[in-house]
Amino acid sequence: MPDQLSTEPYDRTVFYVSDGTGITAETFGQSLLAQFETMKFRQIRMPFIDSVIKGRELLARIDMQGRKDERPPIVFSTLVNTEINNVVRQANAVFLDLFATFVEPLEKELGAQSTHSMGRSHTATNSPQYDRRIAAINFSLAHDDGQADRGLPEADIILVGVSRSGKTPTSLYLAMQHGLKAANCPLIPEDFERGRLPEVLYRFKHKLFGLTIAPDRLSEVRNERRPGSKYASLENCRAEVMQAEDMMRREGIRWLSSTHKSIEEIAATILQQIDIANQQAQR
Amino acid sequence: MPDQLSTEPYDRTVFYVSDGTGITAETFGQSLLAQFETMKFRQIRMPFIDSVIKGRELLARIDMQGRKDERPPIVFSTLVNTEINNVVRQANAVFLDLFATFVEPLEKELGAQSTHSMGRSHTATNSPQYDRRIAAINFSLAHDDGQADRGLPEADIILVGVSRSGKTPTSLYLAMQHGLKAANCPLIPEDFERGRLPEVLYRFKHKLFGLTIAPDRLSEVRNERRPGSKYASLENCRAEVMQAEDMMRREGIRWLSSTHKSIEEIAATILQQIDIANQQAQR
Repeated sequence: MPDQLSTEPYDRTVFYVSDGTGITAETFGQSLLAQFETMKFRQIRMPFIDSVIKGRELLARIDMQGRKDERPPIVFSTLVNTEINNVVRQANAVFLDLFATFVEPLEKELGAQSTHSMGRSHTATNSPQYDRRIAAINFSLAHDDGQADRGLPEADIILVGVSRSGKTPTSLYLAMQHGLKAANCPLIPEDFERGRLPEVLYRFKHKLFGLTIAPDRLSEVRNERRPGSKYASLENCRAEVMQAEDMMRREGIRWLSSTHKSIEEIAATILQQIDIANQQAQR
Repeated sequence: MPDQLSTEPYDRTVFYVSDGTGITAETFGQSLLAQFETMKFRQIRMPFIDSVIKGRELLARIDMQGRKDERPPIVFSTLVNTEINNVVRQANAVFLDLFATFVEPLEKELGAQSTHSMGRSHTATNSPQYDRRIAAINFSLAHDDGQADRGLPEADIILVGVSRSGKTPTSLYLAMQHGLKAANCPLIPEDFERGRLPEVLYRFKHKLFGLTIAPDRLSEVRNERRPGSKYASLENCRAEVMQAEDMMRREGIRWLSSTHKSIEEIAATILQQIDIANQQAQR
């Protein structure tokens, strides 16, 4: 949950302000604030500030918060409407104006006026890109954990790896964020015994991408799910991971370790490798 | 898929450059470029530029692209390492330096030095926040489409609405992006006949949030899934939507229409309403 109700002490209040969802302001602001590790920030999301009246209310709220804190709040703003922006920026605050700062140099360079209307970018509905994202999410759900083979010819990517190596969250993230139809299929002890991938995957080998994970971390994760089981034991996890890595190596499948990577980092790494492969194929 | 391989004509090449995943640079850059609706941009993601050597390679690549395009590329950079940043910014490009621009005023205001190390913000693994996100994704998957009641006491929110009103992608997004345990439960014709919500939901009424959708849009979406079915017919969609809205009104459930909203907008609206309710409860 957003920490808006936290009663813990904090150094500063931070407002993420936007005419739209505020995702850009928040993503950017959090990255920047992560640079100040020793400080505690109380974060307040203020989306949909799309009228001068809402702008005035917000101005009053920021000023009130500043008086309460006895320090000026920090405001990350992606307001694109000049009139609303001019209201909010009167606040007694550190006003970081993400759009205005960069729009001007861009307008100059591109020789074009910006629309100064709400930036919807990837969030625009009823666009082919948006429909593709929704289709990708539905695809990834339907093709989670080897549930279905039917759609594999349509898949952009098929993740493989032992149970709990991170396939499911990564597939969903690739679909949600990047509009990729990402299926995933577990590698299980039966596959290792046969010494072969699940047969259906051989036709799609160029789409396979492997995830592996350190055995001790895997054991931890599995123990949360089935405490004390053989499935979760360190010994079993060691054996499965070793066999899965052997198999991926033998079959020439690209893979990476999810152990110290977030979903975002795993996804960015996979995309980067796909890009490199595509560029090589183009040459 | 990223449009790195597109052969369509474009006005400018855009690079998203980062020591990390590049998500911040890309989110921000795309919002900003959406302001220039008439222009076409070819976008190239360059994550994990975490050494001076990679910085030099990137510098050469940007300059090569500029010569090919006969126009300087646009570079959105969130590089935090000063040394690498100083290499890349030598490129013959419009260099938009997202971090440096705002880090300095922030350092001054906060009276603290930034770490100048990679911003990981919400992506840091092995943090309680990260574990909560993963747990939320697993929860939302397990509690999709009324599959399970077991975990409902733990749910942060339970979405209700007719089939295909947008519950599943919204639940997954709330989990993935905001770490909320979001369950969802369909409202079906049997519920309307009985004139009651699914019984299990009455215990959790304060957690319910409804989604509705315009009948013609619903019919479109359902026709993609089951073309020509009664389920997808406009007449049936009209009746279901009307009954669902009646029921939500009668039961006092907060709801919104997903028709013209992206997942991000639906999620931001829901969070905003929860925040407001929490603030009122605090008073």
